[in-house]
Formats: sequence, structure tokens, C-alpha cells
Amino acid sequence: MPSPATPSPAVLDLALPAVELTRRLVDLESVSGNEGAIADAVEAALRALPHLEVLRDGDAVVARTALGRASRAVIAGHLDTVPVNGNLPSRLEAGPDGDVLWGRGTVDMKGGCAVMLALAASITEPVVDVTWVFYDHEEVDSSLNGLGRLARSHPELLAADFAILGEPTAGEVEGGCNGTLRAEIRTRGKRAHSARSWAGENAIHALAPVLAVLAAYQPESIEVDGLVYREGLNAVGIGGAVAGNVIPDEATVTVNYRFAPSRDAEQAEAVVRGVFAGFEVEVTDVAAGARPGLDDPLARAFVDAVGGKASPKYGWTDVARFAALGIPAVNYGPGDPMLAHADDERVPIEQIERCEQGLRAWLTAS
Amino acid sequence: MPSPATPSPAVLDLALPAVELTRRLVDLESVSGNEGAIADAVEAALRALPHLEVLRDGDAVVARTALGRASRAVIAGHLDTVPVNGNLPSRLEAGPDGDVLWGRGTVDMKGGCAVMLALAASITEPVVDVTWVFYDHEEVDSSLNGLGRLARSHPELLAADFAILGEPTAGEVEGGCNGTLRAEIRTRGKRAHSARSWAGENAIHALAPVLAVLAAYQPESIEVDGLVYREGLNAVGIGGAVAGNVIPDEATVTVNYRFAPSRDAEQAEAVVRGVFAGFEVEVTDVAAGARPGLDDPLARAFVDAVGGKASPKYGWTDVARFAALGIPAVNYGPGDPMLAHADDERVPIEQIERCEQGLRAWLTAS
Repeated sequence: MPSPATPSPAVLDLALPAVELTRRLVDLESVSGNEGAIADAVEAALRALPHLEVLRDGDAVVARTALGRASRAVIAGHLDTVPVNGNLPSRLEAGPDGDVLWGRGTVDMKGGCAVMLALAASITEPVVDVTWVFYDHEEVDSSLNGLGRLARSHPELLAADFAILGEPTAGEVEGGCNGTLRAEIRTRGKRAHSARSWAGENAIHALAPVLAVLAAYQPESIEVDGLVYREGLNAVGIGGAVAGNVIPDEATVTVNYRFAPSRDAEQAEAVVRGVFAGFEVEVTDVAAGARPGLDDPLARAFVDAVGGKASPKYGWTDVARFAALGIPAVNYGPGDPMLAHADDERVPIEQIERCEQGLRAWLTAS
Repeated sequence: MPSPATPSPAVLDLALPAVELTRRLVDLESVSGNEGAIADAVEAALRALPHLEVLRDGDAVVARTALGRASRAVIAGHLDTVPVNGNLPSRLEAGPDGDVLWGRGTVDMKGGCAVMLALAASITEPVVDVTWVFYDHEEVDSSLNGLGRLARSHPELLAADFAILGEPTAGEVEGGCNGTLRAEIRTRGKRAHSARSWAGENAIHALAPVLAVLAAYQPESIEVDGLVYREGLNAVGIGGAVAGNVIPDEATVTVNYRFAPSRDAEQAEAVVRGVFAGFEVEVTDVAAGARPGLDDPLARAFVDAVGGKASPKYGWTDVARFAALGIPAVNYGPGDPMLAHADDERVPIEQIERCEQGLRAWLTAS
């Protein structure tokens, strides 16, 4: 008998249908920082498969075919979730359009991981070599991200011609992603008592032209590899106050620029500095986006196999980590992204099955 | 021998020069809420004077002549100070322009109170009847203000034709005061993820015309009773943020309107609502100002007696409490108001002596 202090490791049977595998993964709680048990289970299950080479790095697990195919695809997903909030264990409920699986991680993104595991086990000879990547710490500070750690420490493990990230897209292909830049536009004045405002210079009033620029700004829409990326430039914060009777000597607008993947970080910064020429601009963080690479025959074949449609991804995702390695990438997975961190997180099982079929069709196409 | 638990009450000798009296008052610590001992000392000293009728209300002391003069003046000052910060006991230092008295309360406003006490004792037959008012809780929340309490509970004690508040004005007459109004100008939008900003409406961007109005606003200067009051309309705060990746659905500018005493609170509100017509405006607090009454012969005689010059007071002071009772009022006292709450609070003794001489000249003019 195992001691209560060392429970038996969870065992994943990869021969189960992807929906059932999703449920097993969901019930194996793995809030960021607590991925040890699920990574152990994934590693053990994959090591049992003779057609895969398996490597472990922290709580990331990498499993590769080595068939000598002309192309290699990375198919990746994270094992961690945001904190549980009364939404575990999972439950299956009948919905108007079929069964729905409820619980933390059903959408983000154990459905995607389950599809990956089912296919990794059942397709021993995919038409492209595949590197399956299961990683940790996606839902917390970017510096901890397991995919980022692999890219820094073992970039050779991620080498590929194309990448698919199994993040929730409701089973539709969303190519690449926009980049994101945050900057502070700061004005300065001179502090004074508001009873003698003429003795000061009001830094908030000096923001008037900054807001006028933002209100009038017409964002671009830019076609990249066949997808049209819609940009945005918005204030997401504004501040400037000393006290209710003081003319403020400093005020700041925080802007967020979402930029097409045709621009790199430097070009995005140049856009923002150009828009706010003459103002004090401090870029506080920037992450370039990712090209979808849909002009490549490999990627095109993938899109055709899963239904033929592809949209641009607007939100920044880990596909950008592939882009930074020169690998075009798309997002493709079951689950409505709007439900990703919601307490009522849930996925229609039809989407899990559809994604499994789509990927299977692509990986087994003759 | 007195027990250590009941120290002897402080004794004020009102025959001392005003400078020495200032020092005694300063060394009798009286941070707001702790005015009992100083009020006791003031009350006891005044009760010893047969030409004055003395009344006590909480820690406020009122002493009146009853000579049947044609006019009556209120001369008022508060006994409390802001908290001590290593600046007691007082010390006298030689300065380039004469001796300077350092310490908490030297400016705000025990110099003024000392002048009042010296004159209350020495001028037994002033040319106008005088009501001397020493009050508590001026430096804290307005609802606690001792002068406000007297005005509510015993308005008959404050009845007068003219009022002088001994607040620091560096020994120059500052007539009346501007009113002050704070309002929030609020814009609303629709929240959205900043990666899909077109799905929302940015409430911060909607503030652009509000700031444009403020930046372009030309405040008025309005003559009231012979003094020109300069107004001001300023943002003193601005805010609106949900998160760094969210289009905010609400944003607010807090404005402070300092308005001439010719306008009442309703008229001031109408000005602000007119300036921001079409926007959501919420007035959060308003306090009308005070006319200086310098068109009145009594007030004119006072100004002439103390040097002939008078300026408008821009900051709101307790003179407005007299204005609310229909009594024109001026500020006049020793000490630089910029040093009022400073740790290096200090008053040139020349200003104490000058204010004493000025008031004495007026109260004894034939």
C-alpha cells in the first residue's frame, strides 16, 4: 500500500477518446506552479510510446517523432491553469447543442492538450515530423513561462517549419498575433495652490492635445501572409493629481498600441513616438506579434485540412515566442476564448472532437 | 502642592507685550482636539477684565464690550494648530530684518490671537463695540469648526457690522475670499479588451473635449467692493483605468472652480455646468466666498488705519462663515501664510507689533 504522504502518480490512458482525456486532465488540478503531477503523468504516458523521443525540462515535456520527414511542426500547449474557483471537479452537462464539459481548464487549455495527447499516441507516422510540447507557467508572469524557458535554454527542441498553439479559438484557425506595446505619455507643469492657479502650470490641461490625438487616431489594418490585422491605439489609463486643492505638476496617459505582426518592436515604438511627437514618451513594455505564415504550403495545407478558414489573432499569445525563433505559427484549439478564465469555464465536446479530427486529417493526409 | 495628575492651569498675563504673549500661547500646545488648556487660560484671563462679558461654548471663548457704540466688529481667531513636528517649544532667533519667533502656531495663528488678547485687555473703550472670538477646531474637518458651531448654535454672539479674522496675511489686509467648488466631469464608454478596441468605446478618449475646454478656458477677474478677485477653473485630478489591457468604460476629471464672492454657490454651479454643457457634471462640494465689504465706511476706516492697502483673498477661509451671516469680513494677521503649516513655521516679531499697532490705531481712533 502506498503511504498517504506519497500518493500513487496519476496514470493517463492515451487510448481514451480526447473528450475523456480532457476530463482526466481537468480533474488533475494544475494551477500555475503546481504542474508537477500533471507533467509527471504526461511524461510517463508519452514515454510508453516507442515512436516518440521524450525529454523533460522542469515541468515541460517534449515528445518528438524522428521520421526524417521534409517538414517538422511544433504543436504546443500549456498544462497550467489560473486558480480554481469552485469549478473543480469537472462535470458533463447536456446542452442544447450537445454535451458540454464544465470546469477550470476545460477551455484554457486542457481540451487542446488532450487532443494533442490523443494524436501523439495514435498517429505513429504523421506526414510531417511532429514535436509535441506540453509546458508550464503560461498563466503567470512572462519571465516564468515554460515555452519561453525552452526557447532560451533549448531552442533546438523547438526547431520547426510551422507551429500550432492549442490555445482556445473555438476550433477555428487564428493565425499569428498582433504585437502589443505600452507607453506612458507624460506632461509636466508647475505645482501651485488651486486658489492661485495662475502661479502654476496645469499638467492635466497639457494632456488635452494628447487625448485629441488619441480620439482622432485612425488605426491601420495591415495584411500579413494573407490575413488582415486590425491595429488599435488606446488610452488604458490616465492619472495626475496631488490633492483636491493643488494644480498638478505631472500627468500621464498610458497608451496600449496593438500592432500588426509586419512591424517589429522598434517599428512599433517609432509609430507611437511619431504619433506623440513633441511629447515625453516612455515605452514601458513591448512584445512583437507573430506572422501567421499562411503563405507557406505547409500552413496552407493545415488550414485546408481543418476547414479552410483562417482569421487573424488580435490578442498577444505564445505564438509570438515561435515568431521570435523565426517559426510562423497559428492558434487552433477547442473552447471559446471569452470563457478562458471565467468561473463558468466550459467547452462543448463537439469542439474537442472537431479539433481532433482536423489535426488528425492534416497529420495523416496522403 | 498640586497633585501631578492635576497640573496647575496655565496663567496668561495679558499685560505682557503681544510678542511675549505669542510665545506663551505657542508654548501652550493646542493641536486640534486638545484646546482645553489654552481655552481655559484665555477664558480665565478675559474673565479678569471687568469691561468684557465672557462666554464659553465648548473650547470657544467669546468676550464682548457693551459700550452702546453705533457699530460692532467681530475680531476672531482660532486657538488650535496642526500637529507639532519637532517645532516646539518656541525659540526666538535674530534674523537679518529683526528677531523671528519660530515654532508651531507662530504663524497659524497664535500671533494673531496674542494681538487680540493684548488689545482686548488694554483697550477698555474701543470706538466700536468689539466681540473677541477665540475658537477651536479650525484645522480639522469643517463640521467640527468652532466658529461654524457658534454660527449655528449662537448666531447672536457673532452679530456685527464687520468682521476681522486674524489669519496670517503678513500684516496686510486681504478682503473677503473666493468661493470654491469641486465637480466631477464624467464620460462613459464601453469596456472591451484592448486587443479588440473597436468592440468598445474609450471613455478616456471621450475626455479630449473636456480637457480642451479647460486648456482654453479664460478665467474672469471680478471686482467686488473695490477688490478684484481673480477666478480659476482647473483640473485637480483625472482618472479612468480598468487594467492595462482594457478599454475603460468610465473616466473622470475632477475640477476645482475658485469663484469670486459676487457669485453664490448656485451661480458658481451654473458657471461650471455651462462650461461643460453636454457632459455629465456632478458637484461634489461647494463653499461660497465672502465679500470684503470695503465699500462700507467702517471697513474703509479699518483699512486706512492699518496702512491703506487691501488685496483680495484668493484662498477660502473662515471669513466665509461671516459672509454667510451677512457680515462683510477681511483677513488680517501677522505671519506669511505660505509658512502656515510648515515645519519651519516662524513669524518676524515686527509683523506681530505692526498688526497690534494697526488694530490699536483703528480701535482707538477719535
